[in-house]
Amino acid sequence: MVKMERIQKVIEKIEPIDRQIMEKAQKRLDFLTKPRGSLGRLEELAKIVVGIKREDNPNLKNKVIFTLAGDHGVTIEGVSTFPQEVTRQMVYNFLQGGAGINVLARHVSARVVVVDMGVACDLKPHPNLVIRKVNYGTKNMLKQPAMSREEAIKSINEGIEIVEEELERGIDIIGTGDMGIGNTTSSSAIIAAITKAPVEEVTGRGTGIDDFKLKHKIDVIERALKTNRPDANDPIDVLSKVGGFEIGGLLGVMIAGASHRIPVVIDGFISGAAALLAIEIEPKVKSYLIPSHCSAEAGHNLILSFLGLKPILDLGLRLGEGTGAALGINMVDAGAKILTQMATFQGAGVSDEL
Amino acid sequence: MVKMERIQKVIEKIEPIDRQIMEKAQKRLDFLTKPRGSLGRLEELAKIVVGIKREDNPNLKNKVIFTLAGDHGVTIEGVSTFPQEVTRQMVYNFLQGGAGINVLARHVSARVVVVDMGVACDLKPHPNLVIRKVNYGTKNMLKQPAMSREEAIKSINEGIEIVEEELERGIDIIGTGDMGIGNTTSSSAIIAAITKAPVEEVTGRGTGIDDFKLKHKIDVIERALKTNRPDANDPIDVLSKVGGFEIGGLLGVMIAGASHRIPVVIDGFISGAAALLAIEIEPKVKSYLIPSHCSAEAGHNLILSFLGLKPILDLGLRLGEGTGAALGINMVDAGAKILTQMATFQGAGVSDEL
Repeated sequence: MVKMERIQKVIEKIEPIDRQIMEKAQKRLDFLTKPRGSLGRLEELAKIVVGIKREDNPNLKNKVIFTLAGDHGVTIEGVSTFPQEVTRQMVYNFLQGGAGINVLARHVSARVVVVDMGVACDLKPHPNLVIRKVNYGTKNMLKQPAMSREEAIKSINEGIEIVEEELERGIDIIGTGDMGIGNTTSSSAIIAAITKAPVEEVTGRGTGIDDFKLKHKIDVIERALKTNRPDANDPIDVLSKVGGFEIGGLLGVMIAGASHRIPVVIDGFISGAAALLAIEIEPKVKSYLIPSHCSAEAGHNLILSFLGLKPILDLGLRLGEGTGAALGINMVDAGAKILTQMATFQGAGVSDEL
Repeated sequence: MVKMERIQKVIEKIEPIDRQIMEKAQKRLDFLTKPRGSLGRLEELAKIVVGIKREDNPNLKNKVIFTLAGDHGVTIEGVSTFPQEVTRQMVYNFLQGGAGINVLARHVSARVVVVDMGVACDLKPHPNLVIRKVNYGTKNMLKQPAMSREEAIKSINEGIEIVEEELERGIDIIGTGDMGIGNTTSSSAIIAAITKAPVEEVTGRGTGIDDFKLKHKIDVIERALKTNRPDANDPIDVLSKVGGFEIGGLLGVMIAGASHRIPVVIDGFISGAAALLAIEIEPKVKSYLIPSHCSAEAGHNLILSFLGLKPILDLGLRLGEGTGAALGINMVDAGAKILTQMATFQGAGVSDEL
C-alpha cells in the first residue's frame, strides 16, 4: 500500500498546463516574420511546450528517450514471428548502439535510457543498462493474470523512479519507447479492455504475422480477456491482468514526466496502450502527452482518436523502441526553435500585413 | 538560342535512377535488426536516395537549401496581404538569419543559399547573397506576359548555374525554397495552365487573404490566363506568360540536381509549380524529386496527386522559403542513416524471424 501512495503523490503534483502563458506565446508567434499561422503544427507544438514547461523560451536541449524492455508469458502461444530471446538480444543491440532507436536518437541528438523492466533472464551488466526488473517476464495471460497487483504497482513505481533518477542529468523532453516480444498482444488486450472496442479492431500484425497467426492472436486475446475479466474502471487491474512490465513502466514515465512539467512524446502502439492507462489513472496527464506518429499497427489510430490526440507524423512506422518518438521530438524541437529563434517583423524591419 | 542548348544539354545528362542498386539496398534493409518493412517511409526514402546517387552508403552531409527570391508585377492588382517591399525585406532577414528557413535549416544542419532571381530593386551586397537577377520583377501578367521567352530561358539557366557553382562546396541533397510576394498567384496560374484544373481549385489564400480578396485573386488569374493563352504543351511558354523568375530558377535547380544525381527535396506550393514545369520539360526529373510536405495552400494536394508524389509530412505549413523542404531533408537523412548505420541480425547476434 505504501507504493500506491507513491503513485498517488506523483499524480497529485500534476497541474493543468498553463493556458495563459500559451496565449502569450501565440501573440509572440504572430509577430514573427511569417504570415500568421503559416508554420501550422510547428506553432502549435511550440505553444504546448510553453504551456507544459511554463517557460517563455523553452530550450529542449536534453532529449531523453526511455526504452523499456520486458518479456511476455503469452509469447508461448505463438503470437509473434520472433522468438522470446529476441527481447534480450535487442537490449544488447540497444547497448551496442546498433538498433533503429540508436540511429534515430543520434540523428535527433537524444540520449537513450535502456531499462530492463522484466526481461525473462538476467542480463549482463552494462554501464548504460538500468536494471529495474519487476520479474522474469509476465505470466501467460491466457492461463492467469500476467502479473500480480503488487507487481503492476511496482512496475509503475519503477517507471517513476527511472525518470526521477535521470532528472539529475537533465531532461527537457521525454520520448517513450519499448521492446518486448509479445507486447503488441498485451497492448491490444489493454486497448480492448479500456475502450471496449472489438479485439479484432485493435489487433495488428505486430512484427509481421500472417493471416493465420493474426486470427490466432485475436483468439488468444479474446480468451485472455474472458479468463481474466479486467476491470475497465481500474487501470491497475487491467495492467495486472493483461499488461506487461514495460507498459507499467511507461505509464510511470508518463505520470512522472507530467508531474515534473516535462513534455512526453509518445511513440506508437505500446506507448499508446500505456497512455490509455495513464489517462485513466489521471486525466490531467493527457495535456502533457504529444503523440509522435500514427503507427502502421492496426488499432493505433483507434487509440489516438479515443484520446483525441493528433499525431505529428504518419510514416508507416511500426518498429517501436521509441523510433517514432525520436522523430516526433525533433519536430517539437523545431517548433520550440521557431518560437525562440525567429526574428519579429519589427526586429527585422519587415512590413507587417496590410 | 545558345541558352536553350544549355538547358538541353543538362536534360540529356539526366538518367533513369538505378533500380538494381535499389533492390540491393532493399535486401540490406531486410537484414537489419527490425521486422521487415517496419520503418516504413524511412526505408523507402533510403532506397530512393541509393537509386538516385548510385551509392550503397549514401552520406547526406552537405544539405543545401536554395531559397530563390523574385518579385511579381501582378502584386499591383492586390492579390496579397503583404506589400511588394516585403520580398526585399525578407531577403535581408534571410541574410541576417532570422527567418523561418534560417531557424529550420540550422535545426537540420543545412546551409541556405539565398538568391536574388528578380527582386524589384537592387539589393545591398552581402557575402551570402547570390545575385542572379533576370529583371526587376516580372510584368503584370494581367496586362501582358510576365516575362519574355528569353527571360524565361535565362531564369532556368541561372538556376542551373547556381547549383553548378555550389557543387564546389559539396551538395549531397538539395532543398528548394522561394520568396516572392505574389508568387502563389503566379503558381496557381501555372498549375491551372498545365493541369487544366479550374483556377478556383488551385488557388489558395497565400499569405492569408480573406474571402473577398480570394475571389479577386481567382478572377485575376482567370483573366491573366485568357489574356496570355499559355501553351500547356510548352512549359517555357507557360513560365514566360504567367511565371516568375524564382520559379524558373527553381526549375533550373531541379533539372541541374537531377543531372548531377542529387536528390531534390521540393518544398510546397511554389516549388510544386516549378516541379510541374520541370517534369513537363523532362519526365525523368520526377524520380529525383522528393516531396517534403503537403502544404496547407489549397491546390498543393492537386499538384502532388497530378505528379503521383506522396509527401513525407503533413504539418499544415504554408510559409514557403524552403521550410518544409528543410524538415523533409531531415527525414530523408534519417532514412539514409537507418540504411547505413543499423546493425544486421547476424552482426548483432539477434535471431531472425521464425
